[in-house]
Amino acid sequence: MNGADRDDDRQPSSSSATDVLRHVRPDIRALGGYTTGEQQPGFTKLNTNECAYPPSAAVRRVLAGISNESLRLYPDPVSRYLRDVAAARYRVPADGIIAGNGSDDCLTILYRTFLRPGDRVACPWPSYGLYDTLATLQGAPLVHVDYRRDGDTSAWGLPAEALAAAGARMVVVANPNNPSSTLTPVGELRALADRLDGILVVDEAYVDFALPTNADASLLPHLAQHPNLVVLRTFSKSYSLAGARLGLLFAAPALVTEMNKVKDSYNVNAITQAIGAAALEDHAYHTEMVSRTVLERARLERELAAFGWTWPEARGNFLLCQVGPRARAMFEVLRNEKILVRYWDTPELRECIRITVGTRDQNDALLAVLRSAL
Amino acid sequence: MNGADRDDDRQPSSSSATDVLRHVRPDIRALGGYTTGEQQPGFTKLNTNECAYPPSAAVRRVLAGISNESLRLYPDPVSRYLRDVAAARYRVPADGIIAGNGSDDCLTILYRTFLRPGDRVACPWPSYGLYDTLATLQGAPLVHVDYRRDGDTSAWGLPAEALAAAGARMVVVANPNNPSSTLTPVGELRALADRLDGILVVDEAYVDFALPTNADASLLPHLAQHPNLVVLRTFSKSYSLAGARLGLLFAAPALVTEMNKVKDSYNVNAITQAIGAAALEDHAYHTEMVSRTVLERARLERELAAFGWTWPEARGNFLLCQVGPRARAMFEVLRNEKILVRYWDTPELRECIRITVGTRDQNDALLAVLRSAL
Repeated sequence: MNGADRDDDRQPSSSSATDVLRHVRPDIRALGGYTTGEQQPGFTKLNTNECAYPPSAAVRRVLAGISNESLRLYPDPVSRYLRDVAAARYRVPADGIIAGNGSDDCLTILYRTFLRPGDRVACPWPSYGLYDTLATLQGAPLVHVDYRRDGDTSAWGLPAEALAAAGARMVVVANPNNPSSTLTPVGELRALADRLDGILVVDEAYVDFALPTNADASLLPHLAQHPNLVVLRTFSKSYSLAGARLGLLFAAPALVTEMNKVKDSYNVNAITQAIGAAALEDHAYHTEMVSRTVLERARLERELAAFGWTWPEARGNFLLCQVGPRARAMFEVLRNEKILVRYWDTPELRECIRITVGTRDQNDALLAVLRSAL
Repeated sequence: MNGADRDDDRQPSSSSATDVLRHVRPDIRALGGYTTGEQQPGFTKLNTNECAYPPSAAVRRVLAGISNESLRLYPDPVSRYLRDVAAARYRVPADGIIAGNGSDDCLTILYRTFLRPGDRVACPWPSYGLYDTLATLQGAPLVHVDYRRDGDTSAWGLPAEALAAAGARMVVVANPNNPSSTLTPVGELRALADRLDGILVVDEAYVDFALPTNADASLLPHLAQHPNLVVLRTFSKSYSLAGARLGLLFAAPALVTEMNKVKDSYNVNAITQAIGAAALEDHAYHTEMVSRTVLERARLERELAAFGWTWPEARGNFLLCQVGPRARAMFEVLRNEKILVRYWDTPELRECIRITVGTRDQNDALLAVLRSAL
C-alpha cells in the first residue's frame, strides 16, 4: 500500500497485510482461481468462442434509446419483460425462467441453491473449468467422470452410468460439450435425468450451433417431463453479446422460486435486460448468423482436414483439433502472428488446440499461418 | 408446467416437482429471500434512495458510442480501465480495487471469501437487510447488535464494544447507515478496525452525501492504515446509475488477490465498465448533483419539521422520519397518491417511514399530500 504518506497521524495497526490473510477461508487461499481466456488488443480472438459476427442491429437501436430513467432507477429485479420474450420464444412458462448476469451467474445460483458443504457435484470431464472452481467456492467436492473415449480421440461418450452412481446431488453436463464441441443425444440426457437422484444441469451455451443439423439437440422442449432438470442458455455465443453478460436458466417453477432467493436482488442490469430482449426478438438475424457460422465451420473443417488433423464431430462454434505433439508449437506460432486459439497443458488436452470459428477473413488468416508452419 | 402437450411421447418421470425440492438446501427453503423496494410504473419513487437527478451527460455519450466489438467479445474480467480511473480519483492503488455488479455483488464476494459455514458475521442493527440474507446463503450465523439508542429515537450510536466482542470473523457497518441515514464518526470505525480480530467492512453507499458537511466521513483515506478494513462504494446513489449495476470494493491488495478468486470471472459487463468510468471522470457534474441533493435535503427537512416529525441527523439522501403510530397510515396515504416511500412493519421501525430526497417537484408533491393528510 502506498497511502501511508496521506495518513501519518497514527501508527499502522498491529495486524499486518499478511496477518490478515488468516481470515480468508483456507479453501479459497488454496484455490488458483478460474483462468479466463487471454485478451490482447489487436489480436484476432479465436480462443474464447465468441460469435464471429456482430449482434443484431436492433441491439444498437435499443442501446441508443436507453433512457436516463432506466439508468437512474434500480432495474427490474426479475427481468420480467426479457423473461416474457424468452417464454414466448422457447414455449416455456415465464415463471420457469431466471435471467442471470451471464450463465456463469446462473451456475453460481445453482451451486448455492443445491450444494451444502460436503455435497458432491459431478460432471463428465474434460469440460468447462468453471464447474470446478464453483465447487471449491461452495465447499462441495467435484467428481470428474471421464468421457468414454474408448481409445478414440474422436469419441466423447457420456459416462451416464458413472455419473448416476457418483452420489452427486447435482450433475452438470455441457451439451454441446466444451472443449470437445461434441453433442450428447438428448435421449441419453433424459435417461440420465430419470435415473438421477439429484439435479441434472444441462448447459446449452452452444446448442444454437447444433440445432441446424440436429433439430432435437436441446432439452428445453422436454423440460416439463423432468422436474429435476435445469437447462442453461447464454447470450455470449450465438447472440454475440458476451460483453453484455446475459444467461437464462430454465427449470420447474417450484425450483425457480427457491433459486430466486439465492440470486443477487438486481443481478441483471437494465441495459442488458433491454438489449437481450431485442436480440431475442430479432429471430431472423439470429437464424442467419447461426447459419453463417455453421457454413463457415464446414469450410474451416474442409481446409483443416488438408493438414491431416482430426477433431470430434463439432456441434459448437469451435473445433477441438487433435494436432499431436506439435499442438503447443502451433498455438505459439499462431500467437506470434497475433492469432489467439486456446491451449491447455493438461494430460488430456496437451495434444489439442481449440479453435473458434471466426469470420471468413479470420479463418483464412489462421489457415495461412498454419499452412506455412506445417 | 404447461409443456406436457408438446412432449407426449413418454410418461412423466417418477419424481414430481414437489419431490425434487428435497434437493434444495434446507436453509434456502426456510429463507424468505430479500424483498426489494416496490416498483410501480407511473409512481414517484421515494422508496429506494436512488439519486433524484439523471446521470452525467458523459454517460449518455459513452452509451451511444458502445461498439459492436465490445458487445461481441467478453468484457475485461478485471475492469482495468475503470479501476485505473477509480484509483486516480480516490488515491488508492488500482490493485486494491475490485469492481462489482453493484455493491451487492461486492458483498457477496466478501461473504464467500471470508465466511465458512458456522463463522459468525455481525452488524449493528437495524441496517441493510441484505446483510442478513447473505449470511443465510453462506450458512454463517448473523449477530445483530442494536445501535445504542439510549431511549432517544434520534440517537444511533455505534455499539463498538459489543461488535468487537461478538466473535465475528467479519463485521459489516453501513456508514451512513441505512435506514437511519446517520453517520458514525470515522474515528470510531478506525478504533473498531484496530481492536477487531476479523474483517471490518464499511459500506459507504451514501457517503458522498455526507462529505459536503463532514469532510472526513469516509474511511478510504485511512485504508492503508488498516489491513483488515474493506470499504464499499456504489454507483447506484450519487452517480445515478442504479440501473447499470456498479459497485467498487477497496481493500489491501493482498486481500483483493484472494477475493478476485471468488468473483464471477466476467462480473461487470462492458457497457457498465465504460459508463461507470465516464461518470467517475465527470467530477464536476457529480459534485453539482450531490450539492443539489444536500440543499434539497435541507429544504425538505425544514418543511417536514412543520409537521412535528423528527429524524436522526440525516447524512444520506434520505430521512428516517419518526412519525409515530400513524406511520403506516401515512405510507398508505402517500401510496394512494402514487408516491412510494419505505415502510417496515418491524418492532424497531413500525413508527417510521423512510423518505428518499427527490427533486424539488417530487418533494413538493410529497409535502402537499402529507399536509392535507395531517
